[in-house]
Amino acid sequence: MKRGRIAEMLGIEYPIFQGGMAWIADADLAAAVSNAGGLGIIAAGNADADYVRGQIRKAKELTNKPFGLNIMLLSPFADEIAQIVVDEGVQVVTTGAGNAGKYMSLWNEAGVKVIPVVPSVTFAKMAARTGAFAVIAEGGESGGHIGELATMTLVPQVCDAIDLPVIAAGGIADGRGIAAALALGAEAVQLGTRFLSATECNIHENYRNKVFKAGDTATVVTGRRLGHPVRSIKNQFAREYGKIEYTDISDEELDQFAAGRLRMAVVEGDEKNGCFLAGQSAGMVTKEQTCAEIIADLMQDADRVIGDLKKWEK
Amino acid sequence: MKRGRIAEMLGIEYPIFQGGMAWIADADLAAAVSNAGGLGIIAAGNADADYVRGQIRKAKELTNKPFGLNIMLLSPFADEIAQIVVDEGVQVVTTGAGNAGKYMSLWNEAGVKVIPVVPSVTFAKMAARTGAFAVIAEGGESGGHIGELATMTLVPQVCDAIDLPVIAAGGIADGRGIAAALALGAEAVQLGTRFLSATECNIHENYRNKVFKAGDTATVVTGRRLGHPVRSIKNQFAREYGKIEYTDISDEELDQFAAGRLRMAVVEGDEKNGCFLAGQSAGMVTKEQTCAEIIADLMQDADRVIGDLKKWEK
Repeated sequence: MKRGRIAEMLGIEYPIFQGGMAWIADADLAAAVSNAGGLGIIAAGNADADYVRGQIRKAKELTNKPFGLNIMLLSPFADEIAQIVVDEGVQVVTTGAGNAGKYMSLWNEAGVKVIPVVPSVTFAKMAARTGAFAVIAEGGESGGHIGELATMTLVPQVCDAIDLPVIAAGGIADGRGIAAALALGAEAVQLGTRFLSATECNIHENYRNKVFKAGDTATVVTGRRLGHPVRSIKNQFAREYGKIEYTDISDEELDQFAAGRLRMAVVEGDEKNGCFLAGQSAGMVTKEQTCAEIIADLMQDADRVIGDLKKWEK
Repeated sequence: MKRGRIAEMLGIEYPIFQGGMAWIADADLAAAVSNAGGLGIIAAGNADADYVRGQIRKAKELTNKPFGLNIMLLSPFADEIAQIVVDEGVQVVTTGAGNAGKYMSLWNEAGVKVIPVVPSVTFAKMAARTGAFAVIAEGGESGGHIGELATMTLVPQVCDAIDLPVIAAGGIADGRGIAAALALGAEAVQLGTRFLSATECNIHENYRNKVFKAGDTATVVTGRRLGHPVRSIKNQFAREYGKIEYTDISDEELDQFAAGRLRMAVVEGDEKNGCFLAGQSAGMVTKEQTCAEIIADLMQDADRVIGDLKKWEK
């Protein structure tokens, strides 16, 4: 498969981004993906400025290829981290959970390519207006914080609405998903859940095993009541949250109930009490591979699927 | 685009099914789709046996091409209608909302091709075990009663799980969606929302206009509390239902609140109180066309998209 326009402009070999998963996507994972020819992305999440700077510097030691940083705009450290991006010469920033407008002139002047993650046409248009390089249209079949639109309907509608390149995310785990995303109009793809299987992904072994064991209906969405829906693997925590969400518990208590759960999953591997974020594609992720093996697999598989589509030609 | 195996086996010209939308998909719509080379499908919904027999006979007068009947298995008239299918020589039956196992030997002995609509791998395997001809894997971006999995993740996982041909549904409204569905492993597609725009679709003009005006985020899912989620266009009814769903209202009262709302939408065009079922693809449906125009458009567009994918070949 050719690398296409976005990969060319970013100086990467393959049009494959690794999703900026909070608590999960660190320098090790991002550098491994970038070394394998994709775009590795470190997640800033809610981490402080020192931690993020440290991860960026570590990634620079581990790879001389381009990598990105995902900034969660609601983070209390967003202002500081926005500046670190410029100081450290990070080439690509992806943004989630908010409007990146505030930092756009800072980043654009420094030559940082800004790629907001968008859940709808409205957010895509906002990104285009404020000078984004591209957008990641992420469907609600993905893991973690999700929007309501599915990849199948989001990607073509975003492509119709703006002139920027579109990266598709949500529900993509193999070459079929990549070929489907290209058919929908995307020029690259972002995968999160598939990279949970990577040898270089520093999650607790229990987390990885939960992904490998997951079937097609293993995930559930909680948090709709508070307007911040989150997809995770069904377990005791998700069941309990799903129950109390429909009671007269206060919003504060509900928030408190969920606090710290991601750390419990990623670091402690607490199968009952942790929140194991994963997308609906978890059912297609069944074995550990290195990032290099994953990316080689994806590209080869996408080639096969695109080749097979010829049988539909008249 | 070639018609492929399913279309060949069904004796239709194009691999395009029209969804069996209750209250909407009548003999006029189904016959128009079949005459245009797709597979038209009459919806039995909760209608009684006489009505369904009448619609089948009407369709036979309007077309000599194959058409199907969608049976809602929870209908109080399901037993009678199952027999009518055989008596009237209907070629294809699609089933929703339940397990078709009870009728499989009756239908298979009569040579009826049974194609259950499935929301998950478990239901797909059950269909395969009980002798289905194929399955329709329908993602939750579709309109009406929906499952939790999106088309992007459902279709490949169903393809991996069973050996039957798979028809993809949910979120498909143009050639991009068709090509994406084929990439995911489907051999045909089913579209519902797109056919709401058909000249031959006997819905109230207010319904059609609501679809034309819909943007990407125009739909909402209600009914999750009762375990029967339904996607419809946001309006006063959907907002009210969405509110009381999270209160201590009884399940019976909640059911009662929704009763008769589809009729109000389809027949009366009551924009405030009706339930206007539509999928997330409503944002891509913008103008009235005949069924023949829709199907010609879809096939031409899919051809273009599949041709364009060549630019990704090495």
